[in-house]
Amino acid sequence: MTNDSYSSKIDIRARERALKILYEKFYDVLKDVSEGRPPKLVIKKRTLGNTIYDAERKLLLLGDATFERSLLDLREARKFMQTLLMAGIIYEALSNGEYPTIRDLYYRGKHTIRYRKLPTKSIGEENTWEEQAESDSVLRDIEVFSNVLREEMLILSKEKGKVVGDLKIRSGDDIIDLSKMGHGAYSIEPTPDLIDFVEVNAELVLVIEKDAVFQQLHRIGFWKKYRAILITSAGQPDRATRRFVRRLNEELGLPVYVISDSDPYGYYIYSVFKTGSITLSYESERLATPHARFLGVMMTDIFGSTKLGKKPYLTEEERRNFIIRAKERDIKRARELKEYPWFKSERWQIELNEFLDRKVKLEIEALAGKGLKFLADKYVPEKIEVGDWIE
Amino acid sequence: MTNDSYSSKIDIRARERALKILYEKFYDVLKDVSEGRPPKLVIKKRTLGNTIYDAERKLLLLGDATFERSLLDLREARKFMQTLLMAGIIYEALSNGEYPTIRDLYYRGKHTIRYRKLPTKSIGEENTWEEQAESDSVLRDIEVFSNVLREEMLILSKEKGKVVGDLKIRSGDDIIDLSKMGHGAYSIEPTPDLIDFVEVNAELVLVIEKDAVFQQLHRIGFWKKYRAILITSAGQPDRATRRFVRRLNEELGLPVYVISDSDPYGYYIYSVFKTGSITLSYESERLATPHARFLGVMMTDIFGSTKLGKKPYLTEEERRNFIIRAKERDIKRARELKEYPWFKSERWQIELNEFLDRKVKLEIEALAGKGLKFLADKYVPEKIEVGDWIE
Repeated sequence: MTNDSYSSKIDIRARERALKILYEKFYDVLKDVSEGRPPKLVIKKRTLGNTIYDAERKLLLLGDATFERSLLDLREARKFMQTLLMAGIIYEALSNGEYPTIRDLYYRGKHTIRYRKLPTKSIGEENTWEEQAESDSVLRDIEVFSNVLREEMLILSKEKGKVVGDLKIRSGDDIIDLSKMGHGAYSIEPTPDLIDFVEVNAELVLVIEKDAVFQQLHRIGFWKKYRAILITSAGQPDRATRRFVRRLNEELGLPVYVISDSDPYGYYIYSVFKTGSITLSYESERLATPHARFLGVMMTDIFGSTKLGKKPYLTEEERRNFIIRAKERDIKRARELKEYPWFKSERWQIELNEFLDRKVKLEIEALAGKGLKFLADKYVPEKIEVGDWIE
Repeated sequence: MTNDSYSSKIDIRARERALKILYEKFYDVLKDVSEGRPPKLVIKKRTLGNTIYDAERKLLLLGDATFERSLLDLREARKFMQTLLMAGIIYEALSNGEYPTIRDLYYRGKHTIRYRKLPTKSIGEENTWEEQAESDSVLRDIEVFSNVLREEMLILSKEKGKVVGDLKIRSGDDIIDLSKMGHGAYSIEPTPDLIDFVEVNAELVLVIEKDAVFQQLHRIGFWKKYRAILITSAGQPDRATRRFVRRLNEELGLPVYVISDSDPYGYYIYSVFKTGSITLSYESERLATPHARFLGVMMTDIFGSTKLGKKPYLTEEERRNFIIRAKERDIKRARELKEYPWFKSERWQIELNEFLDRKVKLEIEALAGKGLKFLADKYVPEKIEVGDWIE
């Protein structure tokens, strides 16, 4: 296969851009070496201590603290070499028109270095890296250092996100009409920044945590009737799904509503869409959707709330049949959530306290079990209409 | 939403068909009741003892042993009631134009029955079912009894399978060109029997276990160059992906090649495509692809084989960097596989013995790590050309 013969024009442009930035960013290191100076990299710290919740922008962001990674510092020499090794592998893959994954980057770089120990001159052996956790961490350093996300370096990954709706996009060399997917759906590409929005005819975005419920709402025609773009993250959202949702909100101005199970894991899935994830805060700037709204399922949807003047959506009998007792780890997780700054709003504290008082949870499927038409034609549209979401 | 206003014509027809069959199948039970006879159901046993490997057809199938489920047999009364309850829920869902999932069928049927105990006349309580495992098992009985798969009853589920390639299909009311998916892919619908193949321009089907490797081969244009339909099961294949692959093989006459990790779990994924799964043997007749070929990754691809006159695809250094030591559970699983009738062929025994001798495994990603072009332009096409697969 000759280079690029089958790559889309968009990929070729993206590749050239990434090559250029990587070259510029690492040029100083090469210059240091060639001019006999001890080479070093200055990188923002990705520690919890340097992860800051920006209450105004409603984002988890990296702070300004940096560290120096120097070849001639014994504690840092290994990491320094790993960083240059990884940068070299990515540069080579881009030059060759390849599309590595984080798993195969690990394999590409994995080998044993033999060296002569001083002063005995015996032979020592050291692996470039042992586990993928190590190579992944190095890749994150490169993302932070170069300010280029791995997707922009055409590093691919497993993708779970799906979408249907009245939206035409350009991806690769094709124009795709997401309203013409039949009973299936469009599986979002790993590099959603390379998508162009060509034509949109929708009023809102509805993100469903569970793939099976997405299938149900799709099949019943929910997105046609309510002019929605329907998305599923199929559980914990991956980076591509988050970026795609953010772009729909930011560039098309569409309000984003998220529906998850009513338990701390569901609430956290929403917060990953909205605020970002704690471990990968450097991506939030691009991946988070600060205006995403939590539509449900809320504890106050299940039990109602005199404080909020809300009637419950479930009868007492339905509650008896549908709710599940919370496990110890659910309760522990809810207590953690209560302490996160982005769950400190009065509205979230009501939900979390209700959860901790009742110690029960509810799956979205229970609402579909009450009737798909209840879910599609009452619960979702009514809550949107009266504004019963958490911002 | 009025009935069917947004359902595709195909769904409306499928619904009518399922309603008719269910009605006919359960009619005798209703007749028994109305004419004062003790009602009963005769259902094929889904036990391991009644699961037979048909060596000629190369399929795991249900045998002919049946059991009677009778209302007036105390041991069976609960199951009998559950079966009628589930059939009723499905019938009602179909009549209402709904699309239940197995999870919400569980919720739809879950409630507590209060009854008066004899002889004390105190009040007893019994739940229709406790866990989803119970309602799922009842659903399987209905599939076996009515000879209608749950997909034909428009029961939906989470779907992981994706496809790209030069193939036009009709799904719902749309015609979809699977060669125009850009960098994304088409996510297969939960009801693949409702798909029509409109136009095909391909010579083979390549099924990749790992979603990320599928993304890589797609992006590098593998399917264009080799006229392939490229599919991923994203791990253990779901029913829809298996049925879709089977239809490509049976109806379009395309050879099917499967690539998985080289370890017992990977080999078993292939065998689920080919032979069916042990726990759900009643589906094999429709879902399995007996002619599916295991292309790799084989132990003999890694180490070569003097017996087979094969050279290894990896150098000694690559083996050192790429192979992973097998865990105790891998070895245990390989020993189980060796005893399954459908792994008893001489060719499979060579692979399994090699695995048990070496006690190492290899991921597909390691081959992509050796170079995506190696995987796409040498390994896969060369093995297909020389016929180095296991039937």
